[in-house]
Amino acid sequence: MKQLMLFAALLAAATTFAQDKNIPKAKWHFGRAGGQDTTWGYAQVVKVGNTLYLSGTVATSLDERGITNVYRNIERSLAQYGATMQNVVKETIYTTDMDGLKAVVGFRNKFYKGDFPASTWVQISRLFMPEAKIEVEVIAELPR
Amino acid sequence: MKQLMLFAALLAAATTFAQDKNIPKAKWHFGRAGGQDTTWGYAQVVKVGNTLYLSGTVATSLDERGITNVYRNIERSLAQYGATMQNVVKETIYTTDMDGLKAVVGFRNKFYKGDFPASTWVQISRLFMPEAKIEVEVIAELPR
Amino acid sequence: MKQLMLFAALLAAATTFAQDKNIPKAKWHFGRAGGQDTTWGYAQVVKVGNTLYLSGTVATSLDERGITNVYRNIERSLAQYGATMQNVVKETIYTTDMDGLKAVVGFRNKFYKGDFPASTWVQISRLFMPEAKIEVEVIAELPR
Repeated sequence: MKQLMLFAALLAAATTFAQDKNIPKAKWHFGRAGGQDTTWGYAQVVKVGNTLYLSGTVATSLDERGITNVYRNIERSLAQYGATMQNVVKETIYTTDMDGLKAVVGFRNKFYKGDFPASTWVQISRLFMPEAKIEVEVIAELPR
Repeated sequence: MKQLMLFAALLAAATTFAQDKNIPKAKWHFGRAGGQDTTWGYAQVVKVGNTLYLSGTVATSLDERGITNVYRNIERSLAQYGATMQNVVKETIYTTDMDGLKAVVGFRNKFYKGDFPASTWVQISRLFMPEAKIEVEVIAELPR
Repeated sequence: MKQLMLFAALLAAATTFAQDKNIPKAKWHFGRAGGQDTTWGYAQVVKVGNTLYLSGTVATSLDERGITNVYRNIERSLAQYGATMQNVVKETIYTTDMDGLKAVVGFRNKFYKGDFPASTWVQISRLFMPEAKIEVEVIAELPR
């Protein structure tokens, strides 16, 4: 039984920890094996120490559905390591339409439940996907 | 007397700490109650552990007055947690006019007093406020 | 002999540590004295605690040569503090031509050797140098 538990622990380490055994890094990418997208070369979440770095999460519409999808995906990503929106300490929002984003800020705000991070919003020329209108990246901190 | 000090300590915790008691997070927003802007949903400074994350600070003119205002506001924000520009480890500058920014770099540089952070400068389409020409965000580290 | 070693240690501290003795900050800038560019006011690498913040590294062509130069410079910067691409936890890529970047992603990916960071890619209007087409900044974590 002890051997089985040891084997399970090793297997978990193999699937969540990165190649370099020297830094306490773990990765997750929407349930994908290896915790990353190897085509474009990124992980949705990288955990290092108590910090979570998330790649940008996108939507193609600046409306309730688009904004809600973005933050639900962020919530899902954070949840892999036991975090919620209340663990988010820094947010960067890239959008192709700042006025369009401002009009729907309420759909974003409710995810934070009155506990907001530091946040910077910039309007850029385009995102990774040509049809994307918003990309939100966050840094979150786990309890020590 | 001890009870009074305990009460004062609890009150201080209530005004500077975030809802989630599990992470050592504090927030500040230009003296505003609760340490955040609840309309747009962000805090000017979030402190987590020994790290300070600042939201972008803006100016509408790329001249001595605009640049000086930006960095005085950053200094004021850092000072809430006992930090100075010398604690800044990373800076990102977003501007709508890179050549205009380069022409006034001297007004920025003097704030760093010869001790510069890692810094990335990008020219973007527009900022949160349509009339803003520069937005500077920084990460600072407090002594351990 | 002990005095000589002490002198060497003090000299090393003097050249790699920042002015503020209170935070464990070190800087490097392509072998430059003082670890920074004092004209534009930035350091290529700032080390604080176990975290490395790198300024953006640029190329003027989105082809094998340009991409390879960017990541070789990042590798060189990381190596100053004993880190490799496998220590990178977060990457931000700013480009003036997203489709051009996507076409050469393979030249980037091989540097990561199958161990990718969280990464956000945005297309912006221009970079610090008018002729630059890509600027890559990373955060890396050293072993504790």
